[in-house]
Amino acid sequence: MATTVAPPQHTSTLQWTKKDLLGLRELSTEEIQLVLQTAESFREISLRPIKKVPALRGKTVVNLFFEPSTRTRTSFELAAKRLSADIVNISTQASSLSKGETILDTVRNLEALKVDILVIRHAAAGVPHLVARQATSSVINAGDGAHEHPTQALLDLFTIREKKGRIDGLNVSIVGDIMHSRVARSNIWGLTKLGARVTVCGPPTLMPVAIEQCGVRVTYQLADAINDADVLMLLRIQHERQEASLIPSLREYRLRYGIDKERLAHAKPGLLVMHPGPVNRGVELDSSVADGPFSVILDQVTNGLAVRMAVLYLVSGTPKVDEEAA
Amino acid sequence: MATTVAPPQHTSTLQWTKKDLLGLRELSTEEIQLVLQTAESFREISLRPIKKVPALRGKTVVNLFFEPSTRTRTSFELAAKRLSADIVNISTQASSLSKGETILDTVRNLEALKVDILVIRHAAAGVPHLVARQATSSVINAGDGAHEHPTQALLDLFTIREKKGRIDGLNVSIVGDIMHSRVARSNIWGLTKLGARVTVCGPPTLMPVAIEQCGVRVTYQLADAINDADVLMLLRIQHERQEASLIPSLREYRLRYGIDKERLAHAKPGLLVMHPGPVNRGVELDSSVADGPFSVILDQVTNGLAVRMAVLYLVSGTPKVDEEAA
Amino acid sequence: MATTVAPPQHTSTLQWTKKDLLGLRELSTEEIQLVLQTAESFREISLRPIKKVPALRGKTVVNLFFEPSTRTRTSFELAAKRLSADIVNISTQASSLSKGETILDTVRNLEALKVDILVIRHAAAGVPHLVARQATSSVINAGDGAHEHPTQALLDLFTIREKKGRIDGLNVSIVGDIMHSRVARSNIWGLTKLGARVTVCGPPTLMPVAIEQCGVRVTYQLADAINDADVLMLLRIQHERQEASLIPSLREYRLRYGIDKERLAHAKPGLLVMHPGPVNRGVELDSSVADGPFSVILDQVTNGLAVRMAVLYLVSGTPKVDEEAA
Repeated sequence: MATTVAPPQHTSTLQWTKKDLLGLRELSTEEIQLVLQTAESFREISLRPIKKVPALRGKTVVNLFFEPSTRTRTSFELAAKRLSADIVNISTQASSLSKGETILDTVRNLEALKVDILVIRHAAAGVPHLVARQATSSVINAGDGAHEHPTQALLDLFTIREKKGRIDGLNVSIVGDIMHSRVARSNIWGLTKLGARVTVCGPPTLMPVAIEQCGVRVTYQLADAINDADVLMLLRIQHERQEASLIPSLREYRLRYGIDKERLAHAKPGLLVMHPGPVNRGVELDSSVADGPFSVILDQVTNGLAVRMAVLYLVSGTPKVDEEAA
Repeated sequence: MATTVAPPQHTSTLQWTKKDLLGLRELSTEEIQLVLQTAESFREISLRPIKKVPALRGKTVVNLFFEPSTRTRTSFELAAKRLSADIVNISTQASSLSKGETILDTVRNLEALKVDILVIRHAAAGVPHLVARQATSSVINAGDGAHEHPTQALLDLFTIREKKGRIDGLNVSIVGDIMHSRVARSNIWGLTKLGARVTVCGPPTLMPVAIEQCGVRVTYQLADAINDADVLMLLRIQHERQEASLIPSLREYRLRYGIDKERLAHAKPGLLVMHPGPVNRGVELDSSVADGPFSVILDQVTNGLAVRMAVLYLVSGTPKVDEEAA
Repeated sequence: MATTVAPPQHTSTLQWTKKDLLGLRELSTEEIQLVLQTAESFREISLRPIKKVPALRGKTVVNLFFEPSTRTRTSFELAAKRLSADIVNISTQASSLSKGETILDTVRNLEALKVDILVIRHAAAGVPHLVARQATSSVINAGDGAHEHPTQALLDLFTIREKKGRIDGLNVSIVGDIMHSRVARSNIWGLTKLGARVTVCGPPTLMPVAIEQCGVRVTYQLADAINDADVLMLLRIQHERQEASLIPSLREYRLRYGIDKERLAHAKPGLLVMHPGPVNRGVELDSSVADGPFSVILDQVTNGLAVRMAVLYLVSGTPKVDEEAA
């Protein structure tokens, strides 16, 4: 049974000490690097014939999703299973919350069942933080409102580093609905900490006030965002934004901010096109680009699994991956 | 791999012989004691770093829930997983029943898949009994209508014994919607068999006719129920009761039967306050009490897991917990 | 730990080479025989005290169901678990598809998570084929529109062979809604390839045009279908057909095509009555027959599990069942 994990390439002597992973705002540069290194050693597990290590055997992970999400739920579920953890899925629809229970009561009940890690997604910003303060088990934020989605940003960082060899000094442009995007917020924290120059671009109605204070450049012109970019990170445009009159129509959005081959004609060679998925083909991203040579969208998904394995592993406080392997 | 289970404190020589666990009415005092002793030896497993024993490896448990319940489903799911059983969740919404299949056909089909244990919850009293008579696999009643909820009562008994050292001779008051409560019914059977004096208390409209014949005292005055109680067991009041005009309003219910600190001012020292959850904070139970020193509500949840592990183990007929451990 | 699989009775030297199982139309007679033989060796596993072998440990199976189905989903889920695979359930309701993602994007994302086998059910014919052409992982068709349901036909063939000792030369009549039935289509391919004489019978409004070209005999008279039959395969009649005015009423359908004891009075001794389930008792099949001595309906369910274990095992390309057993 080959369960050896390859040693990480850039070994850090830093130990992970945080109980939770709530956001990239709270992480130091060294902690971000540690997650990325750990993910690197886990990435290879999913390429083996037997995609399983005993690292978290006998640990219990709960996917507590107050917002539906097949993609993120499945990624965490597989990450837990490949680490041999037990995992239970709980979604709002079927939950006691419909019986009027508070979130904290739900969490206290789960803790009474001696669970180890709570993976929480909620439509309201701050819910994972609230829970983490009360809970003795580890909390991983799987997306809270328009606030943070740390594992998404970590997988994005991982993917950039994998493809470009570094993050420091790169120009990264984030295009779309910046205002409502937890992906944008987490990436801004992570990218600036690791030394990238970040530009945000989108319609003025979808641009948060005073976003410059986060250390990013703002532009409303797509060409300006593409011009010197090493990485172009697209955000999903949501139909609700149109209904709320924040954009006139999906067609108009596409005309001004949609990415197609022509728009990338003068992009830097080696540009990376990223998207957190699911892609609205023909709105923020044309199929010619989504499936084209610049796109690393599916690498992001693969790396997301490795990053989530790393995060589950680090917060669980288990000292070494193969410790329990006989 | 430390999978040893500590020997139970009060060893019984009784062997479990029942295929099913349908209700506490059917259990002898000795059988109840056996479940509690077995649960005691399983309780410790969930406190280990590796919360897993191989006792039910290769066995199949089905959670067949015709009523939604995240809490009970999750408790059984974790109990099964910590015993290394395979577990499949089936809920009505997604089931063939929407295609008009009878319950017995659903069960026969599951049995044809060679499952070992069916955990059944249903809104109609008697369904688990009906199934158990037809099935060769073991049936565990996870709540049937207003009839029985045996694992809830067993975890309540376990918690009382754990906190008080005994059940015999204690005064236990059950307060709330006695009429519609399977929790009350199962507890009345269990508590009286183990020698407790049981008082039931609630609005006359929610009190079943001739309940005294079960060997309990009836009162409609909350003070009277609290007075000499060693244990105060609250029931969840359900909003539907108000719609059915059985209680005038939740506010009035609270005024007459809600428990807050003031109401417990003259309670016995060492009173236990119990609730099967989820708690309607501010209706049957004030937060000052639910989160206060008398409350053992979260201990109930923890003990529920141990009791369900014990029940799964006993009905599966496996002779010894660690038998298969290498 | 006894994980030895009994050698198949009729050993074939044929190796399985197909990545996918899409339909019986695509399978050679030898390949069908190989599945049946493999299923025979797996059937015994579910009769053991420990119903688990390590054959697919560390492999990931996804149940990707765009149509609800508890029965088929549960059968695949248990098949995967008894082979020690990790399995993730994804159903349309909870899926990203509600966010407008294409099926191929959903599949590409799952493949990026390094899954091994996709079990797909969809209301549209051809979806599993479309996916299989794009995917590097194995695809198993769990029912596509009115097209094919290969594991159902394979379990039917397995059951006939088990009960009759052979398929070649038998008279098999399929009765019901032939037009909309993927079960009928897959069985017609499989039965004719294995040498059975197939008769199809049902109301003219539910009989596809030119069905004779598939090598079957057509009759609209039930007596004619029963007359010389060794096997009588009933199909589920769906209430929607009545709404679409394809049958006048369920009562009339029953009068002309429903099977009860009287109708079988002159049937061949040893007739097998089969049904893919769930049975509409009192419509296409009377309880006296469904639960009677001719019925092998529950054997079909048991065999379905063995056939699905065999198919998961064969497409996964694992060379030997017990290879990884220590």
